[in-house]
Amino acid sequence: MSIARPKIAVVGTGAVGGYYGARLAQHGHDVHFLLRSDYETVKRRGLNVRSCHGDFRLSPDQIQVYNDPHKMPVADLVLVTLKSTANDQFQPLIGPLLKEDTAILTIQNGLGNEDRLAELFGASRILGGMAFVCINREAPGVIHHIDHGLIRLGEFKGGPSDRANRIANLFSSSTVQCEVLEDLRFGRWSKLIWNIPFNGFGAVLDLTTDRLIDNEAGIELLTGIMREVAEAAEALGLKMPADIIDQQIRRTRTMGAYRSSMQVDRQEGRALEVESIFGEPLRQANRAGVKTPKLEMLYRLVQLVDRHRPKLE
Amino acid sequence: MSIARPKIAVVGTGAVGGYYGARLAQHGHDVHFLLRSDYETVKRRGLNVRSCHGDFRLSPDQIQVYNDPHKMPVADLVLVTLKSTANDQFQPLIGPLLKEDTAILTIQNGLGNEDRLAELFGASRILGGMAFVCINREAPGVIHHIDHGLIRLGEFKGGPSDRANRIANLFSSSTVQCEVLEDLRFGRWSKLIWNIPFNGFGAVLDLTTDRLIDNEAGIELLTGIMREVAEAAEALGLKMPADIIDQQIRRTRTMGAYRSSMQVDRQEGRALEVESIFGEPLRQANRAGVKTPKLEMLYRLVQLVDRHRPKLE
Repeated sequence: MSIARPKIAVVGTGAVGGYYGARLAQHGHDVHFLLRSDYETVKRRGLNVRSCHGDFRLSPDQIQVYNDPHKMPVADLVLVTLKSTANDQFQPLIGPLLKEDTAILTIQNGLGNEDRLAELFGASRILGGMAFVCINREAPGVIHHIDHGLIRLGEFKGGPSDRANRIANLFSSSTVQCEVLEDLRFGRWSKLIWNIPFNGFGAVLDLTTDRLIDNEAGIELLTGIMREVAEAAEALGLKMPADIIDQQIRRTRTMGAYRSSMQVDRQEGRALEVESIFGEPLRQANRAGVKTPKLEMLYRLVQLVDRHRPKLE
Repeated sequence: MSIARPKIAVVGTGAVGGYYGARLAQHGHDVHFLLRSDYETVKRRGLNVRSCHGDFRLSPDQIQVYNDPHKMPVADLVLVTLKSTANDQFQPLIGPLLKEDTAILTIQNGLGNEDRLAELFGASRILGGMAFVCINREAPGVIHHIDHGLIRLGEFKGGPSDRANRIANLFSSSTVQCEVLEDLRFGRWSKLIWNIPFNGFGAVLDLTTDRLIDNEAGIELLTGIMREVAEAAEALGLKMPADIIDQQIRRTRTMGAYRSSMQVDRQEGRALEVESIFGEPLRQANRAGVKTPKLEMLYRLVQLVDRHRPKLE
């Protein structure tokens, strides 16, 4: 991935893939979007982004959309922004897009996504990233970018690389702040400290972030599980900042009445990302010998919510 | 409470108070019902019980109803069947009904009810009971008795007494199976092993008992917290049967799609019995030095559900 104008494929054009792909396309990059349910709408009407930094639009003649990966050009960079519940589709959706040196960057939630991609396509081409962004897909082809936007990314194997820096520059040159991580696992676990409680309790209780943090019981609930996740990360050799829990609560206070992606998934009857956000972290914690009874309980609760959700999708 | 035809006051004529009071009245006992929201309806139309053992009805001229304890006769036995969320009403509702030897039997959920009654009215007159019954109040003046019905009762201080046996006979002679407990605390904690998970998760997830036990995640969720509660009971000196957890799951399989009282309270927008079912057991477990992280988490979850419930009552 060293050429001047790399071909970028976005696999899974939901809120995250749509927003970041649109930013890259807006700034002149050669972006090809793979869509499923929203394909017809976006092909006809383009992609509309309502953003806290100013609204913008990719009109139908400014956007390259596909509903079949075999119709797409082979890519230099594949951005994977599928829900992790669709990871069984990696082979048919991503396989056709690869050449020898294609890099794959997954910006999915939780743990296990890079591992699965590495099994299928080889570890050396895999990078992982986290999006620190408040974003919802409002309607087909309409994305609401509410706040933030930072991406942190890193190599799946090894430290910072030229490749990682070049990918970071694609984002930085498209008004998306982007940082390269020393250690991807550190980044993943740091993000889980927010994702596990706010996605989990947000979905189980169907409460926005502000209603979780505006009372003592909610703070106890959130920080109780954050402590377990931080302890698991430490046992896995990752040094967490001493004030990481306070940091998360403070950061959340700026978000207002934010619906976590899992609360939205529940409300819209979509499959919940149970395994990547709860199951895999729980298994890694247990293998590291850490007891995480609250994480285990939240995992079971989310499984039940997922099992009994009305199937609306 | 030694006279031949004792005066019995029922304080709180919801599902439990209505059902057991109606059984006593049906069998010739002198029962006086205190009501609040359903007073006008029951006064006009009587009390209707749809029961798995055969429906019956107390017509308006067969039932003695009141909306003010000062209008009621002083009682030999007060049955307390208020929601424990109304325990701040003990003094005004029960005080006017007492003479020197009035016995008070609370058939409320959870822990702390006898203690509060003892503080107000003296420990020597207090007994506690548990109702093992599937029962819902369907509408004002209409009670649906779905299954079971056993009452276990015991003295708040001391072992089985003549008084406890006489009260048990009132129920037994009214087709209500009734057993006198050696140790009320044992009975209370045994019942909590069911009440804590099924009321808690039933309310948090809004799921009936059958949907909690028909899958692996649900069984893990339920038994995880049952183990903590059993461990707390043991630490408090109460010897639990080795198979108590299996017993609870087996017993629940016969209940069908049962809505726990707390699930019903949530659905109807009523206050949840947070402190008696979760808060007080948690505090007792902690004082006994037992770690109960799952119980603590469930306590916080129920607090949040209670905090954010739509106020429909």
